[in-house]
Amino acid sequence: MAETDWVACVDDLKGVVLDMCGVLYDSGEGDGAPIAGSVEAVKRIRASDLKLRFCTNETQATRESFVAKLRRLGFDISVSEVFSPPPAALAILQERGLRPHLLVHDGVLPEFDKLDKSNPNCVVIGDAADNFSYKNLNDAFRVLMGLEKPALFSLGRGRYYKETDGLKLDVGVFMKALEFACDVEAEVVGKPAQMFFKSVLADMGLEPHEALMIGDDLVNDVGGAQRCGMRALQVRTGKYRPSDEQHPSVRADGYVDDLAAAVDALLKHRSQ
Amino acid sequence: MAETDWVACVDDLKGVVLDMCGVLYDSGEGDGAPIAGSVEAVKRIRASDLKLRFCTNETQATRESFVAKLRRLGFDISVSEVFSPPPAALAILQERGLRPHLLVHDGVLPEFDKLDKSNPNCVVIGDAADNFSYKNLNDAFRVLMGLEKPALFSLGRGRYYKETDGLKLDVGVFMKALEFACDVEAEVVGKPAQMFFKSVLADMGLEPHEALMIGDDLVNDVGGAQRCGMRALQVRTGKYRPSDEQHPSVRADGYVDDLAAAVDALLKHRSQ
Repeated sequence: MAETDWVACVDDLKGVVLDMCGVLYDSGEGDGAPIAGSVEAVKRIRASDLKLRFCTNETQATRESFVAKLRRLGFDISVSEVFSPPPAALAILQERGLRPHLLVHDGVLPEFDKLDKSNPNCVVIGDAADNFSYKNLNDAFRVLMGLEKPALFSLGRGRYYKETDGLKLDVGVFMKALEFACDVEAEVVGKPAQMFFKSVLADMGLEPHEALMIGDDLVNDVGGAQRCGMRALQVRTGKYRPSDEQHPSVRADGYVDDLAAAVDALLKHRSQ
Repeated sequence: MAETDWVACVDDLKGVVLDMCGVLYDSGEGDGAPIAGSVEAVKRIRASDLKLRFCTNETQATRESFVAKLRRLGFDISVSEVFSPPPAALAILQERGLRPHLLVHDGVLPEFDKLDKSNPNCVVIGDAADNFSYKNLNDAFRVLMGLEKPALFSLGRGRYYKETDGLKLDVGVFMKALEFACDVEAEVVGKPAQMFFKSVLADMGLEPHEALMIGDDLVNDVGGAQRCGMRALQVRTGKYRPSDEQHPSVRADGYVDDLAAAVDALLKHRSQ
């Protein structure tokens, strides 16, 4: 199959959903670094008739500070276009009247300012990075073991992501740890949860087959979107590994070198 | 069934294997504290015709310093009677010519002094407690991801244990974390691995049905020993929880309040 055969399957496309870390930029020291051609690629989508949203499992910062970082890197993005797990989790907790014990990055704490966190009756974990200490994991574990029905929410279930200095363990790894410790199953908020993709589609006013997901995470971006009925591409940037293209259960609709190449092929096909 | 009906099934018993933490003592500040009646119970087994060994997944100290602690708590135990994962792991690594990256407690490092640890080609994790930092887990993860065939050894697969100040996450939780992160299956050294129980039985010169395991961990002590053909009791001390007695897949041959009660019933039955 030629590298761009996937474009033939996206004739009815009306919108694009972009993962952020590993597609737009690599995180790392300071703001991290934009991936070559991505700033321009976002501009080109905006200049087309395609709708555009961003869908990230970023949970180290509030959406506001995260979008500010992306803007410093040169991306033209606004907060209302970005879907991330913390606001989705906040809505669920409020709806169910839950008081969380939070094991998250300090940067994302303000998203949960409104909630009563006394006498917690659930645990919420995000990409806490260095906050994933033995002590903090043990504290979360003890809260869960003290509940009659332990409720664990995980902001994503990624295995790892790539920073400029190498691979880093993601929240899914610690979700699995606590699931095993407490013999519970976590409720995932964020990709690959269907609810999360559906909320993006609803905001775009599109049917699943009208939207294309582009991500670097084969299971959470590509597999998650496909289970929702969307088409999905994997970029060969970020956490991409060549072995992804032989994954036993998830196969992307197309594999592209980077976001710039995906947008090139897409816009060229649509202009024909 | 009466509380002591299990003794009728152990007529041909020739030896007893005792788990240590949660059966003999509770770990915690300093040396921890002996469980009431356990020092005396060990003496009574010694005074009988039963063989006696100890089988622990303790990996926070060398066997020597661990046994020294138990002796300070009043137990008459010698190093050669104690089976623990580090010496078993050392033998496996030497046999296979492996160079480990160690993520273990500082106290157990001397057990691995002999090994070349340069340019590691496997990862060994033990009950590292506070050494389970995000940085150290990430370092172990990167070693595994850099190997063509990632090899992960876990010194036990327990979920948690009880210290005097509460429950603590055990090595199995971090084994699950790294298994998920790297998409590998760990090789468990220690309970509940059959190899481990078999080495204890070989040392005693007994067949499985001639030995009784007594432990506080339903899955790793009781279930592991039973899969080897041994009989096994769960004590209601240490990490025991009432829900263990309704476990969906593991059922002990008997449940006893503590080691003293088990030894009482056992010796009374044998004298009849």
